[in-house]
Parts: sequence; C-alpha cells; structure tokens
Amino acid sequence: MSREQRAKVDAVLREPRPAPRTVQEMRAGFAARQARSAVPEAITTSATTLGDRRALVVEPARGRRPGTILYFHGGAWTLGSPETSLSLTGNLVTRSGARALSLDYRLAPEHPFPAAVDDCLEAYRALLDSGEDPARIALAGDSAGGSLAVTTLLRARERGLPTPAAVAAFSPGLDLTLSGGSMDAKHGVDPLFTREALAAVFAGYCPGQDPLDPLLSPALTADLTGFPPTLLQVGGNEVLLDDSTRMAARAVAAGVDVVLDVTADVPHVFQFFAGVLDEADQALDRAALFLRQHLDG
Amino acid sequence: MSREQRAKVDAVLREPRPAPRTVQEMRAGFAARQARSAVPEAITTSATTLGDRRALVVEPARGRRPGTILYFHGGAWTLGSPETSLSLTGNLVTRSGARALSLDYRLAPEHPFPAAVDDCLEAYRALLDSGEDPARIALAGDSAGGSLAVTTLLRARERGLPTPAAVAAFSPGLDLTLSGGSMDAKHGVDPLFTREALAAVFAGYCPGQDPLDPLLSPALTADLTGFPPTLLQVGGNEVLLDDSTRMAARAVAAGVDVVLDVTADVPHVFQFFAGVLDEADQALDRAALFLRQHLDG
Repeated sequence: MSREQRAKVDAVLREPRPAPRTVQEMRAGFAARQARSAVPEAITTSATTLGDRRALVVEPARGRRPGTILYFHGGAWTLGSPETSLSLTGNLVTRSGARALSLDYRLAPEHPFPAAVDDCLEAYRALLDSGEDPARIALAGDSAGGSLAVTTLLRARERGLPTPAAVAAFSPGLDLTLSGGSMDAKHGVDPLFTREALAAVFAGYCPGQDPLDPLLSPALTADLTGFPPTLLQVGGNEVLLDDSTRMAARAVAAGVDVVLDVTADVPHVFQFFAGVLDEADQALDRAALFLRQHLDG
Repeated sequence: MSREQRAKVDAVLREPRPAPRTVQEMRAGFAARQARSAVPEAITTSATTLGDRRALVVEPARGRRPGTILYFHGGAWTLGSPETSLSLTGNLVTRSGARALSLDYRLAPEHPFPAAVDDCLEAYRALLDSGEDPARIALAGDSAGGSLAVTTLLRARERGLPTPAAVAAFSPGLDLTLSGGSMDAKHGVDPLFTREALAAVFAGYCPGQDPLDPLLSPALTADLTGFPPTLLQVGGNEVLLDDSTRMAARAVAAGVDVVLDVTADVPHVFQFFAGVLDEADQALDRAALFLRQHLDG
C-alpha cells in the first residue's frame, strides 16, 4: 500500500488551474500538464504516417521484441496528441518490448464523431496493408483513446478486417449516457471529472448523435462477440469506474477473455504517475505482461 | 487463441468415470485424476507443521525470492491434499520465486465447517508467530481452497491479526446459496459441476449452517473493507463464474484493489492444465506477477 503516494497524487490533481477560455488554451494547458509525466529514457521516437495521419513511432532502445501496439492518446476527443501520452507508450514499450505507433487522429470540436474513429480504423487498415500480422497487433489507449481502441475494434469487425491480438484500455469512457452508478458514488471523490463536465465533453465530440450508438456507448449496447482478449484498467476514484466494470461484465457475457483491473483510491489514468505512485508502475507491468502474452500469440 | 486446446481440455473432463460409492473412493479417484497434472521439475518439497496440521513446503529450485504463499488446496472441502494441488503451487513458486506452504487442513464430512477455516487461521497465526512479516505473506488457493483463502482473511481480521500482502483465488466457491446467474447460464457448459452437485457438496461441508454466513457466502454478505489486493481467476465455462464476478464487484465497492481475470471457454481451475493449455500458463504467469508485486511490498 502506498497511502501517502495516493494522497499526493490526489492533491496534485486538485491544484487550482486558470480556467481556459478557448479550445486552443485548453490544448496548451493539457500539453503542459501532461509534460510533467515522466517519460522513460530508454526509448527512441520517430515519425511515420498511417492512412493520412501522422503517427509517432515509439520503440524500446533495448530488448525489442515482435509486436506493435497501435495506440490512441487520451484528451476527451478534443485535446492531446501522441506526445501527451508519451509517458504511457514509453512505459508500455520498455516493459513489453513491442513498439507503439501512436496516432495523431483528428480532434473535436473541429472534427466531430466519427472523424476520430475513421482515422483510427484507417490507421489499423494501413498497418495491415503494410504487411503487419494482425496476431502481432494490439490496440490500446487511455481515456478517450481507450474508447477509440474499443470502437476501432467494433468498426474493424463491421468492415470485415481481421481481429487484432488484444485490446487494452486505461480508464475508457464507454457510456455516453453517463448512467454508471459511479457517476454519483464518486462525485467529489474524482478529482478531475463530474457528470456535468463529461456531458460537456460529449456535447463537443458527438453533437446530435444517438447516445446509444454502440460506437459511443459500447458498455451499454455493443455486441462484443469475437473480441480479442481485453484488458480494462481503471482507478477506484473515477466517475468513469463503472464504464469499465460494466464493459467487463458485457465482455464476460459475450465469451471474451477479459481482465478487469481496478486500483482503489487512484484517479483517472493513474498510470501517468509511473515513478511517483507504485501502483502506476505495477499496473503498467501487468498491462505489459498482458500485451506481451497476446503479441506472442 | 487455442480453440483446439480448449476443446481437448473440455473433452478430457467429460470422460466417463466410475461412480464412487464412498468418500474414500472419491478421495482416491480425485488424487488419481489430479496426479495427471504436470508438476514443474524445478521445485523442491519438504514437510513442516503449521499449527497442528501438516504442510508441504514447495520451493523453487532456483531463483528463490522473498515471500511465502500460504496455500489451500481444492477438493470441495472434502477431497484433496497439498499433493493434489502440487501442480499449482509448483507453477506459482517457479514463476514467482516465492515459496509456498500448502496446508493439509481437516476435511468434511468427518470435520465439517468451521474445522477447515480454523485450521487455515491457525496456520496463518503460526506463520506470523514464526516471525514471518505479514507484508511478505500472500494467501492463495483453488476452488474450495480459494474460498478458504478469503474466509481466512475475514477471520484473521475479526481476530485482530495483521492483514497479509495479497490474496489470490482460482475458481473459488463464494456463494452457498448457489444464486449466481451462471448456475443456469453455464448448466451443461460446465463439464464438472451442476447446481445440484454443488448443493450436495455444501450439504456435506456445513450441514445446518446459515447459508448467508459471510464465511460461507462472502460474495453475498462479507464486509471486504480493508482487504489486501485481491486476484480472482475463473473460467468462462464454470457454473461458479458469477461467484467471482460478484465478489469482484463487492471488492470494488469496498475500495479494494482487485483484478478479475476471466478466461473464456475453459473449465473450473483450468490452471491445472498448464503445459497443455496455453491459457493456463498465461494465467499462472499473470498470477505470479500479481503475487510478486505484492510480496515485494
């Protein structure tokens, strides 16, 4: 147990911030905050293109093993870039030996749903077209990117593309109706989000859409039959907690191999606190083992 | 995916068996079947005593690291011994580096509830009295032994003993009322158990007891507050599946670190098929990492 570490992480996230006024200010503030997460030194990065979008290639400097993690960053579908999730992709590649391709998908509100899903699907297709064996590809992401990993899989199946080896989502948002019991139970406990704040996020991401679309609320309506092994990691202090618990229940019912991995008393995407919070490092090690097991076939 | 392996495991378990007539015949048959599970070669075993019960010490031949797994074998509280779960303890110690102490607790129907719980608690107390740091002890078990790991923890808390570092349960039975939806949903899918068979097991284990006693139905009534990190691994073909899913939900609600790890299309304590079923080896590797993380403090 690291009670002091967990309390410190909570306090950091509750620090008052100047209220941003424009999307550009929000993006700059998000990038600045994310830059505080430690990035492992033993990685190399380079640029590539998947479909017609930029992607950041993140590779372990040592111990490269087979497999590619197609990664989707977080940021409420509105903020962020491959660089703002570099702490996570860096930690995953150093711990698993796989490389990550982290996609710079289009953001809302300029590009609302389904622009991001389209970009993610085209990236997966481009990776397949390049000759990558789907049995050596895992989809992964944090927050909105975790949701995109799930929805990309749904759309890939719909389009007849082969199933990748695994999917891993960190604190995904999987219920546009915000109906999880944790929305109330974790109100105030969650240092980052409230139901109201998430409603505003969704309004920007997918205005006018059916909230029960399986690509928006997969935890409620998606048919998960045929999903590859699925890892869901989530913090116990999140209003989004029940998005993962309900997704896991749905996956179990659909006959999917699933690991639901809940760390108590930690916030949204607590894995960003690797190096500061022992539970973050431990969760990343578990995620890396899960990915490695499935990328090895 | 190893569809062929999963189908083979299912077929093995459905092989017709001569109906045993006495408890002694059942025990002999169980021991013979369990002896078919592969035991890793790189272990050493020796005898010890915990409380006033025999225990089997299982140690990795190489790479011993700190920590003790206090292990409770399966067998419906009626069958089995440390030897019948040696495949599991052997695989856990070779993969984690910890040693296991596997307890020969008293069996029903000669010694009904709470005899086994008493023996497990006294074994934990004896381990503490020997100077072992509770932060270096994990409780673990399969089937009825997984249930005993949970109930030993409940009773240890009740008696004011310190909390161990972690608990891991493989396919535990945690609901004496047999009310899980999987009791019906997996009827016939489960090659080993039915609700009726389990009702007979419970009748022998705890005749005349309140089925809602938290030591008998912890998934329904136990207060899990203060539980250490908890791993539940279960097969998707089990009538006992929902014992683990409901226990996990209860643990999440109580603010416990919990990993619910469900492998689809595999039977009760599928980890016995290590070496035959890839998913068994992978699940044991995940369990060993979980135990190692927490035994390292």
